[in-house]
Amino acid sequence: MAGNTFGKLFTVTTFGESHGIAIGGVVDGCPPNLELSEADLQGDLDRRKPGTSKFTTARREDDEVQILSGVFEGKTTGTSIGLLIKNKDQRSQDYSKIKETFRPGHADYTYQQKYGLRDYRGGGRSSARETAIRVAAGGIAKKYLKQIHNIEIHGYLSQLGPIKIESVDHSVTNTNAFFCPDVSKLDALEAYMRDLKKQGDSIGAKVSVVATNMPVGLGEPIFDRLDADLALAMMGINAVKGVEVGDGFAVVEQKGSEHRDAMTPEGFTSNRSGGVLGGISTGQDLVVHMALKPTSSISIPGQTIDIKGNSAEVITKGRHDPCVGIRAVPIAEAMMAIVLMDHLLRHRGQNAGVSSVTPIIPGQA
Amino acid sequence: MAGNTFGKLFTVTTFGESHGIAIGGVVDGCPPNLELSEADLQGDLDRRKPGTSKFTTARREDDEVQILSGVFEGKTTGTSIGLLIKNKDQRSQDYSKIKETFRPGHADYTYQQKYGLRDYRGGGRSSARETAIRVAAGGIAKKYLKQIHNIEIHGYLSQLGPIKIESVDHSVTNTNAFFCPDVSKLDALEAYMRDLKKQGDSIGAKVSVVATNMPVGLGEPIFDRLDADLALAMMGINAVKGVEVGDGFAVVEQKGSEHRDAMTPEGFTSNRSGGVLGGISTGQDLVVHMALKPTSSISIPGQTIDIKGNSAEVITKGRHDPCVGIRAVPIAEAMMAIVLMDHLLRHRGQNAGVSSVTPIIPGQA
Amino acid sequence: MAGNTFGKLFTVTTFGESHGIAIGGVVDGCPPNLELSEADLQGDLDRRKPGTSKFTTARREDDEVQILSGVFEGKTTGTSIGLLIKNKDQRSQDYSKIKETFRPGHADYTYQQKYGLRDYRGGGRSSARETAIRVAAGGIAKKYLKQIHNIEIHGYLSQLGPIKIESVDHSVTNTNAFFCPDVSKLDALEAYMRDLKKQGDSIGAKVSVVATNMPVGLGEPIFDRLDADLALAMMGINAVKGVEVGDGFAVVEQKGSEHRDAMTPEGFTSNRSGGVLGGISTGQDLVVHMALKPTSSISIPGQTIDIKGNSAEVITKGRHDPCVGIRAVPIAEAMMAIVLMDHLLRHRGQNAGVSSVTPIIPGQA
Amino acid sequence: MAGNTFGKLFTVTTFGESHGIAIGGVVDGCPPNLELSEADLQGDLDRRKPGTSKFTTARREDDEVQILSGVFEGKTTGTSIGLLIKNKDQRSQDYSKIKETFRPGHADYTYQQKYGLRDYRGGGRSSARETAIRVAAGGIAKKYLKQIHNIEIHGYLSQLGPIKIESVDHSVTNTNAFFCPDVSKLDALEAYMRDLKKQGDSIGAKVSVVATNMPVGLGEPIFDRLDADLALAMMGINAVKGVEVGDGFAVVEQKGSEHRDAMTPEGFTSNRSGGVLGGISTGQDLVVHMALKPTSSISIPGQTIDIKGNSAEVITKGRHDPCVGIRAVPIAEAMMAIVLMDHLLRHRGQNAGVSSVTPIIPGQA
Repeated sequence: MAGNTFGKLFTVTTFGESHGIAIGGVVDGCPPNLELSEADLQGDLDRRKPGTSKFTTARREDDEVQILSGVFEGKTTGTSIGLLIKNKDQRSQDYSKIKETFRPGHADYTYQQKYGLRDYRGGGRSSARETAIRVAAGGIAKKYLKQIHNIEIHGYLSQLGPIKIESVDHSVTNTNAFFCPDVSKLDALEAYMRDLKKQGDSIGAKVSVVATNMPVGLGEPIFDRLDADLALAMMGINAVKGVEVGDGFAVVEQKGSEHRDAMTPEGFTSNRSGGVLGGISTGQDLVVHMALKPTSSISIPGQTIDIKGNSAEVITKGRHDPCVGIRAVPIAEAMMAIVLMDHLLRHRGQNAGVSSVTPIIPGQA
Repeated sequence: MAGNTFGKLFTVTTFGESHGIAIGGVVDGCPPNLELSEADLQGDLDRRKPGTSKFTTARREDDEVQILSGVFEGKTTGTSIGLLIKNKDQRSQDYSKIKETFRPGHADYTYQQKYGLRDYRGGGRSSARETAIRVAAGGIAKKYLKQIHNIEIHGYLSQLGPIKIESVDHSVTNTNAFFCPDVSKLDALEAYMRDLKKQGDSIGAKVSVVATNMPVGLGEPIFDRLDADLALAMMGINAVKGVEVGDGFAVVEQKGSEHRDAMTPEGFTSNRSGGVLGGISTGQDLVVHMALKPTSSISIPGQTIDIKGNSAEVITKGRHDPCVGIRAVPIAEAMMAIVLMDHLLRHRGQNAGVSSVTPIIPGQA
Repeated sequence: MAGNTFGKLFTVTTFGESHGIAIGGVVDGCPPNLELSEADLQGDLDRRKPGTSKFTTARREDDEVQILSGVFEGKTTGTSIGLLIKNKDQRSQDYSKIKETFRPGHADYTYQQKYGLRDYRGGGRSSARETAIRVAAGGIAKKYLKQIHNIEIHGYLSQLGPIKIESVDHSVTNTNAFFCPDVSKLDALEAYMRDLKKQGDSIGAKVSVVATNMPVGLGEPIFDRLDADLALAMMGINAVKGVEVGDGFAVVEQKGSEHRDAMTPEGFTSNRSGGVLGGISTGQDLVVHMALKPTSSISIPGQTIDIKGNSAEVITKGRHDPCVGIRAVPIAEAMMAIVLMDHLLRHRGQNAGVSSVTPIIPGQA
Repeated sequence: MAGNTFGKLFTVTTFGESHGIAIGGVVDGCPPNLELSEADLQGDLDRRKPGTSKFTTARREDDEVQILSGVFEGKTTGTSIGLLIKNKDQRSQDYSKIKETFRPGHADYTYQQKYGLRDYRGGGRSSARETAIRVAAGGIAKKYLKQIHNIEIHGYLSQLGPIKIESVDHSVTNTNAFFCPDVSKLDALEAYMRDLKKQGDSIGAKVSVVATNMPVGLGEPIFDRLDADLALAMMGINAVKGVEVGDGFAVVEQKGSEHRDAMTPEGFTSNRSGGVLGGISTGQDLVVHMALKPTSSISIPGQTIDIKGNSAEVITKGRHDPCVGIRAVPIAEAMMAIVLMDHLLRHRGQNAGVSSVTPIIPGQA
């Protein structure tokens, strides 16, 4: 299969370059009879879009999504849903210099070598612009998960450079431009970013996503495990270099007696597993973390080569986020929603006929 | 698609439970004319198999793989390759107690709730026994990658509990039962494991895999990126809770000026990216790390529930590894080989007609 | 996988309803460096579109396709290609009566029962309007096949009701509105259609497609055979009820001595197989035939039920083809091109490394 | 995806050559809790196996299938089911002559050209021997369909050469070696086959399959239609050259007023559609026909070439069916069962949440 489709029963196929006419996609496999309109998707698109704070790129896109099909009289019909977002702000002159030069840390070199040519305007297909469609598609999944199964998905910034955010209050995450779930950290974040901007540099970040009200039983071992598919989804987000489920890399130094989550008649007493055992959801909160690299588009000169292999210097002058991780929060939420939706349908397909399954832990769906 | 197939052009489909008659699988899409025999696969199976050291499980399995099809007169024919390993040592009496009780930290509970029943003997399908077939399948990929493209894959133990292994010499990894690439650490590892065994506890580990002589251009954005598929593959290995590519979670605290790998006419000057940019291989070494949780099968009593939801205590008395991470080394190598093989064929399928691609950095394939 | 994607390495995903805002799709896996513009696709869209003759539906659609991505400076970039055709002529008032009544022989009843609701305007998703995107996608495949491999695809009307067209001259097929490859039959066809229109009835048709300059070796047994995938593609075209490869149903009465195509050093002496043996192309012309049912949208009253299960009568008054088979010619060509493209890439992916394959029959690619 | 897997949610992956060690496969996605043992599958294997009558090949295979996994204490567990049939009768000396010579009408030439080598013993992978695994896998699907949904699948011989079988009584089909549903035709069939054997020739056949007690709603437009997937499945059976759904090629000469199946409050008044409209099941009987070519393995000499391209003569002396179509009956049944199973799970996955769907025609599931 070509590489622009995600999912098996609930699939998302996308297209579009940063500075092309439009970006878009097809959501296939959405169950019928779900109330759906553009308004349901616009909120997350607005959260993702550039220009929302002084610390993200100044590029202005309305990111107005249009549903072209699959919805009739306000409800999904079970047929494929076409999504379209027109590109409005395409100042391609900003990018003319990168035509001949590979920006270090970017996909310029690999696209050129893989395909023999590339749309160099704004990174073309490798630009994070494309993730707007993932956010729109994820919005459909989010609505279904919430409406039919009461599953909620909460993303947040959990670290920015040296600043660790350890207190999490989902109710405040969306009240600030950092998606920071701890308002006491906002001053430190602002100060850090201000300094960074002066230096013309960028910084990495850690983003976390949690799904609550999870059903037990999602995941299709032994390859299509829920955690494996989440890793696929998250590592596939631009700039992500690491993915953890539950305690993640901390398990390296944990002992078995410490790691295993005890079970009682009332449920699990801890959640070091992050809500997945054997690749299947436990019914606990599903917890995923990811590491996002600092963007290489900075105003500090960097050493590189041009398309002929000669030495060159690159300075990025365009509009760029000093911390791309911040905007990844709604993208990561969207991808978790898409994975859960796909696994929900797959589980239902294979197991709906099972009569004897009743929840052993009270309250688990 | 059901969940027991991995890959798209080069696929591996597996079956089998820990204490069933046999485990096996089908490797599909292997190019024809590759010299292949069981002997090519047995070496890695022997590396993976239990009972190779006093610190891994005492279960004895010959793990003798049989090639049932797809090879004729010593060469692959391009048709599907059937693989079979009979289960010889099936002391199922060891496991009769877990029939009614869920082991904490294991997949017992989730399998029971997902399917309404489970093969409780030795973990059934969720047992790491099944990974023997992944190792055999990966052996086929390894041979092709080495023979046709000179790509080599090296796995090793990079951390065990608090003991970090920072010096890497691939030539010594397979000379010790820890897959430790630094012989100076062997005494410390032995001592640590001896203590652990006395405590009846287990410990987590970090495993790393590196592919050398990589071609540039593998990976199919924007969803089937090379790094994303590696994350899928590695997170799908039993006990893995985190996956990193290149600098992984360290990027959270890195600045852009520090992270981006500079390029010169002679090539990259560093490899923080781990050999992937924009989801496509750069031609540098491909570097992946993973965190493996400590096994929950320990002799220290644990709190759990039984199948009726009542409180229970569990002590694992069977034959188990105090550090399952050690044996994951050949499994992780196998999965990387499978991912690379799949992406090699996919890239070749889509791009073989591209005439203008010549390596910009000298020596890159 | 959801049902709106066709293909594995070269994929086509479509969306859109007859009377929605637009129809569109995503072509993924197209090799880079192919010269491509909308003009390459418009010719076949014009051949397919309604209103081209007095015997096809009077609905007027410009069917102007827009390429939204995947092409840069006139060449494909290897990234996914977004296609969009806006719906201009949406006289939905014509269809208001079918809201409550199921047209016999149409998909109204099955969509309603499958999904619990349906977009009843013009058949919604089940309308042949959607095939315009298949034609556009097929146009991309056609161009690649012709330019890189010199493969040509020729469709034609081979029977209309009782009128059998046995003499085939591809050079005249596109000179008449019937796609009839034998101009001597045009008067008979016109007369037959005129009578049919008077009766308010419709008629079935047989359509054939032939690919010339075929390479040997395409097809991936044992399930993804070339002939099987062609059957999938053709039976998936609206109104098709039968598919044949080569001699098709005539083989039922053939003897082995008569059927088997003899081979000589110069090649095959006949082509009863239709260019496929064992699911793999022989290098001969690839020959497929299909049967298309008469449309049920006729002005003769028919017995049916309404959405509540009560008896009803239906008369179709809208704009409809008396022979939908005619317009299937470019659709069938497009689907053959898509299948060949997919198999070409798959074969290349798995077999490009095979060094020893040289054509045994001279001239076979 | 490699070509040896069929299906999406319920998948069958097979391996094995005619004269290798064994043939086998993996059935993935079977729902848990289905009672299953080898005995459930052996009946159809016995129906398919060679040597059951004097008119089918004299090769003797016990075709004893072994379930290696996925079943525990007599019930499916929801994990992948490994199937194995050992090859017992491998008189490979019979086939040594075909090593250097391509049998006309067989896959020898295409396999050799595709892969550069081939397992020439008995046709290798292209032999119909492999279909035994399809029959075993289909047996699992058949049991589920019957037990959970009461769906039954009936195959039969509908034509052999010039002898058309028009009266169908499913209760007699399995009482004779021809799978003939009309006992009055048995004498004619025997006489025809006796003559054919004397001539050393072979004959084509038509096979039909019908599913009864069908639910409405199966099929995933617009590409994965139920009829399209059936065409894929049937055209993928060895020797099949044509597939029809319902009236098939007869529709070419039908008028719309004649073809469309009228609906009444009690249901459809006819079934020309074969139980599929718009690619979705109508709830009527599902009716499929297929044409099977006469085998080219006959004792009448044929003109061919050898592996170097020189002219050669071929006479097949081995053990072969004069009518391969007869044995296709259980294979076609199996493939229909696999398709229905896959679509049942897919439909359930996507649509289980639909609350408003109640059958409009009484009695439809």
